[in-house]
Amino acid sequence: MRGRLGVGVDTGGTFTKIVAVTPTGRAVRERQIPTEAEAGPGPFVRRVAAAVGELERELGRRARGIGLGLAGDVDSARGRLRFSPNLRRFSGYPLRDALARATGRKVLVENDANMAAWGGYVVELKRRARNVVAVSMGTGIGGGLVLDGRLYHGSTGSAAELGHTRVDDGGERCNCGARGCVEAYAGSYGIVRTALRLIRGRSSLIKGLCPDLRRLEPRLIAEAAAQGDAAAREVWEETGRRLGLAITNAVYLLNPDVVLIVGGVSRAGRLILDPVERVLRRQPFRTPFSHVQVRIARTPNLGAVGAGLLALESLRAERR
Amino acid sequence: MRGRLGVGVDTGGTFTKIVAVTPTGRAVRERQIPTEAEAGPGPFVRRVAAAVGELERELGRRARGIGLGLAGDVDSARGRLRFSPNLRRFSGYPLRDALARATGRKVLVENDANMAAWGGYVVELKRRARNVVAVSMGTGIGGGLVLDGRLYHGSTGSAAELGHTRVDDGGERCNCGARGCVEAYAGSYGIVRTALRLIRGRSSLIKGLCPDLRRLEPRLIAEAAAQGDAAAREVWEETGRRLGLAITNAVYLLNPDVVLIVGGVSRAGRLILDPVERVLRRQPFRTPFSHVQVRIARTPNLGAVGAGLLALESLRAERR
Repeated sequence: MRGRLGVGVDTGGTFTKIVAVTPTGRAVRERQIPTEAEAGPGPFVRRVAAAVGELERELGRRARGIGLGLAGDVDSARGRLRFSPNLRRFSGYPLRDALARATGRKVLVENDANMAAWGGYVVELKRRARNVVAVSMGTGIGGGLVLDGRLYHGSTGSAAELGHTRVDDGGERCNCGARGCVEAYAGSYGIVRTALRLIRGRSSLIKGLCPDLRRLEPRLIAEAAAQGDAAAREVWEETGRRLGLAITNAVYLLNPDVVLIVGGVSRAGRLILDPVERVLRRQPFRTPFSHVQVRIARTPNLGAVGAGLLALESLRAERR
Repeated sequence: MRGRLGVGVDTGGTFTKIVAVTPTGRAVRERQIPTEAEAGPGPFVRRVAAAVGELERELGRRARGIGLGLAGDVDSARGRLRFSPNLRRFSGYPLRDALARATGRKVLVENDANMAAWGGYVVELKRRARNVVAVSMGTGIGGGLVLDGRLYHGSTGSAAELGHTRVDDGGERCNCGARGCVEAYAGSYGIVRTALRLIRGRSSLIKGLCPDLRRLEPRLIAEAAAQGDAAAREVWEETGRRLGLAITNAVYLLNPDVVLIVGGVSRAGRLILDPVERVLRRQPFRTPFSHVQVRIARTPNLGAVGAGLLALESLRAERR
């Protein structure tokens, strides 16, 4: 008995990661294909199916189920994407059914941050925490909730949109059109905007590391901060303070064991964690705040790993 | 077979309501006793037990279980109150075990807003909504969550503290010590503070209805608004706008079917509902916001009714 395998697919705007995972979340094989979203969902489904087939041939094993994660408003009950700014042509297409037909496998479609939350719950927390709030930091801020040990979807599958909770009514403009969402400060474009404001008319290492400021990205601001640049440190301080407020609100509502920060921008590590923790420590309600732990996830490709794990989980639940 | 009965106890700072309820939430008998919190928890438990006994003699029937609701940080797993500003002497006392001994019945101890959430879920929504956010409006703002058809407690039983989610970082002072909590605007003391600010140096019916402004309360501000007073209408507009923002954040996180507003101050009705709905309608994410309904609960004593229902529910769950 060599154990079951699940396949997880994490669909990004540019690249799509595909991994085969064991029930404990070990990635045994992975590949990456271009998403080519502009070609539409039909060709995308065919290329994913082909890549899954190749992965299985290399492994000499067949996977049980496939989890497909996508950034956006996912209708997981019907297996389609309602809307996504980066995958516009995929909206309304029956992704689940098409991929199931193309592969002959059970397919589950889910928001990518939900997938990452499930991956974190199983791999990083070993299912030992009952309630987990995952915060994904990338261009945007996403979220995923594991409540009482199960992925929480909400009533229309739109839960955990932590990025659009408001931290400053009437504040900075968010990509969603509203003002003052935490994403407008802690999404990568918000972090860059803060940096451009803070370095204006001031000497900063950021300018040396990135002579063309139109190409500035959080990675470079983290590098400048690590080298002791004052402006760069202020950027992370402000980012963490805003993110800390959104996390504070989530802790008041959900009283989780763990807040797990995932996604590319979370590699800034303590630069984010320190100011977030300072905000949480200041809260007068001690019980939920002294209980909760804030952590940065360390597993690579957590979204894809979680997608594969969730596919296995859903098959297991069906057999019960 | 005359059906089962549960007893619900809603412990306020001044009075305690006790009701006997059927499994559908019909209150068949009720009484009220003074809480006399200053006499301590031992005498309180004895008086509740005596009142339950009288209620049962009047009905000629014996209740199955007792639900005890208290405002504050309740450790429902251990059946005690961790902390409550209005019931300080009750902290740490084994309320559940003492009341169980005094009555010979199963007892369940729970936060009062959680009890009201459960009552609203069963009585007002007939369990037809899967996910419900209850917001209780009184001196403070409390909350309760029914998620996937079950009361959600969080990891330390402290979930659903919606009143202390922040709507204005660094804003008005809240009773909890922090600044900018929604309670600081929409709790009764916050509403009164807004009114005192808005009527300063201005003619307003509020002053006529309440010549001694130290005694001002939301009921009088609602009366003035109903009579068309401009300042009073502004008070409710601001209250609803702040509350609407906190509810917006809860909808982004939890994607509920219904937000149910309960508690004395909610009798202001459309004065609160209209500005709350305006905030929700403005949100760019349409799926969760066009799905959710905001309602004001109509059942009297919803906290006590919910406590009785939850006691029955927990006994039913045990028998499974």
